Amino acid sequence: MGTEQIQSVSFDGKTLHILDQTKLPALKQFLQITTIEHCWQAIKELKVRGAPAIGIAAAYGLFLGVRDVCSSATFDEFDHVFQEKSDYLASSRPTAVNLFWALKRMRARLMAEKGHSIEDLKAKLLQEAHAIKAEDEEVCRSIGLHGLSLLHDGMTILTHCNAGGIATAKYGTALAPVYLAKEHGWNVKVFADETRPLLQGSRLTAWELQEAGIDVTLITDSMAAFVMAKGWVQAVIVGCDRVAANGDVANKIGTYGLALLAKAHQIPFYVAAPMSTIDMETASGAHIPIEERDAREIINGFGVPTAPADVKVFNPAFDVTPNELITAIITEKGIVRQPYQESLIELFKEKSENSMPQYGNSEEGNQHVTA
Amino acid sequence: MGTEQIQSVSFDGKTLHILDQTKLPALKQFLQITTIEHCWQAIKELKVRGAPAIGIAAAYGLFLGVRDVCSSATFDEFDHVFQEKSDYLASSRPTAVNLFWALKRMRARLMAEKGHSIEDLKAKLLQEAHAIKAEDEEVCRSIGLHGLSLLHDGMTILTHCNAGGIATAKYGTALAPVYLAKEHGWNVKVFADETRPLLQGSRLTAWELQEAGIDVTLITDSMAAFVMAKGWVQAVIVGCDRVAANGDVANKIGTYGLALLAKAHQIPFYVAAPMSTIDMETASGAHIPIEERDAREIINGFGVPTAPADVKVFNPAFDVTPNELITAIITEKGIVRQPYQESLIELFKEKSENSMPQYGNSEEGNQHVTA
Repeated sequence: MGTEQIQSVSFDGKTLHILDQTKLPALKQFLQITTIEHCWQAIKELKVRGAPAIGIAAAYGLFLGVRDVCSSATFDEFDHVFQEKSDYLASSRPTAVNLFWALKRMRARLMAEKGHSIEDLKAKLLQEAHAIKAEDEEVCRSIGLHGLSLLHDGMTILTHCNAGGIATAKYGTALAPVYLAKEHGWNVKVFADETRPLLQGSRLTAWELQEAGIDVTLITDSMAAFVMAKGWVQAVIVGCDRVAANGDVANKIGTYGLALLAKAHQIPFYVAAPMSTIDMETASGAHIPIEERDAREIINGFGVPTAPADVKVFNPAFDVTPNELITAIITEKGIVRQPYQESLIELFKEKSENSMPQYGNSEEGNQHVTA
Repeated sequence: MGTEQIQSVSFDGKTLHILDQTKLPALKQFLQITTIEHCWQAIKELKVRGAPAIGIAAAYGLFLGVRDVCSSATFDEFDHVFQEKSDYLASSRPTAVNLFWALKRMRARLMAEKGHSIEDLKAKLLQEAHAIKAEDEEVCRSIGLHGLSLLHDGMTILTHCNAGGIATAKYGTALAPVYLAKEHGWNVKVFADETRPLLQGSRLTAWELQEAGIDVTLITDSMAAFVMAKGWVQAVIVGCDRVAANGDVANKIGTYGLALLAKAHQIPFYVAAPMSTIDMETASGAHIPIEERDAREIINGFGVPTAPADVKVFNPAFDVTPNELITAIITEKGIVRQPYQESLIELFKEKSENSMPQYGNSEEGNQHVTA
């Protein structure tokens, strides 16, 4: 077991290192990526997962795509290659909002630097990719620091799904306060729901916490009430896919039930939400569409048939937790509480302009998150 | 898809037919058993599952063990063989309370018939095995009929784990009202929780309801709150492992959380409990020991590693639902409600003497039920 947080995407100047999340939890294996084609494949095959991580990977991938353009090229020639490579990367996962956002941001930087030499342009683009990563890390760290004010040494937190470090530059969202607590030398423990059907809790959350040396205990989703009744949980923290203007939260299926259980046991229920996931255009959770996914995730999710092959299945990917069940929403700008309708507006007033995408820190970068 | 309830254990006069529950849901395969050795193996290897079904299988198995005793044997010779065979069967699953109860009951019948011819003794023993089965069916049917008074045509029921027909002679406990509703021509639908970690809901409940032509929809445990919030569930019915004197109920892990969710959505929460599972010697749920099971059920439950191999796991097999969350307890003697402390005592006063074992209708025949 390690004691350091894994960086799922990093660039050492020459090589892009991407944690192959499809190999988890059995193998901790990093792809060594030196070409845009390899990066395209890693995104396409979900080896890199989590909206922010995808955006970061795409930015570095685009740099890889243009770094060999001849120094003697004109700006227009360079830009032509840039656009070609950008379109190519965009085809890797056409539904990933953060992918497009990162590519667009890279192009904006290129345009802003017009007039510089080709080698300078390359350096600026790499700088921009680094900035995208650094900003995401800063957002997560800031969520972690704000979240820390809600925790105390020795407490145990329950979480659902994976809103962890490996989905982002570092720290994650729901897990950021846990990592920050560890940085502060606190002894914080975690119960991780396995999170059926796709088991992000057992495959990813349990794995990354264990890697970071944090005391984590895996349970099935159906055991959350039991550990709460035992008095073993002092807070629930989950990530989110989208926050509506009234504070309703769409997140991985099971979150709503967990919020009800937390309420029944008088345990605070916190949602970690980057500002980019707060959608003031959506009045309430009732307006958030809920994707239904393939029955096979439930009846044959492990390569083994675990139910009659033709049984009827209902498989919603998300649920909506009504704002009244949410003790507080933790953002990088601070913590907001009821009434969310007002507190979220205040938060946006205070918010300095930033260029993060809408719904940017969700797992896939939109409201239809899968893994 | 069939439209008849499966009989998991039946005897046609020559051959004992046992549904091989280890092959479900992929295969519907019946073992054709003509020897006690084969019956021993079926019990040992969990091919027959559910405390009542195990007891019934053992009774028939014991008959198979003595049916070839020579007609000219003395009673003592016959009894000697009987005891030998009984001890042998008892070794198949030493923790199954119903197994011992059935063997003991068969012996009591043998003693009661002393004086009859060997062939007569054999006939009486077969009769006793039939009686054990018929009585279990009657208990389940009676639970079903009482439960029916709580239901209405067109309603949808949510259940957890498998307290179904294949664990008993017929009808099951929690599913008995559903089967009776079908017999009455009602259109009743069921949501079946898959029931992690061992997936009795998807492997068994979804399978047997589908076989019986009942409209069943499989969900993960984490989706129960969602379907309740949608207004799609009008009652929850679960089985139980043990009911304490105050009405607290021990049942498969996840039951307690489900009861809290039902309360939050104002949905009645019913427990189907044969009298044999009501333990007036246990004052409350706090006195019911909760078995913790192997981590592998959670991290490697499908032959595929789904979590870090060495991750810490908490795997309680049961939880306790406090009586205040239980709308009613459905027994074969009638329905009882709050205050259970009093209503259960009344129920036992009315109860005619019967010879069912304590905790007899639980899955394994004691409070430590597994699959």
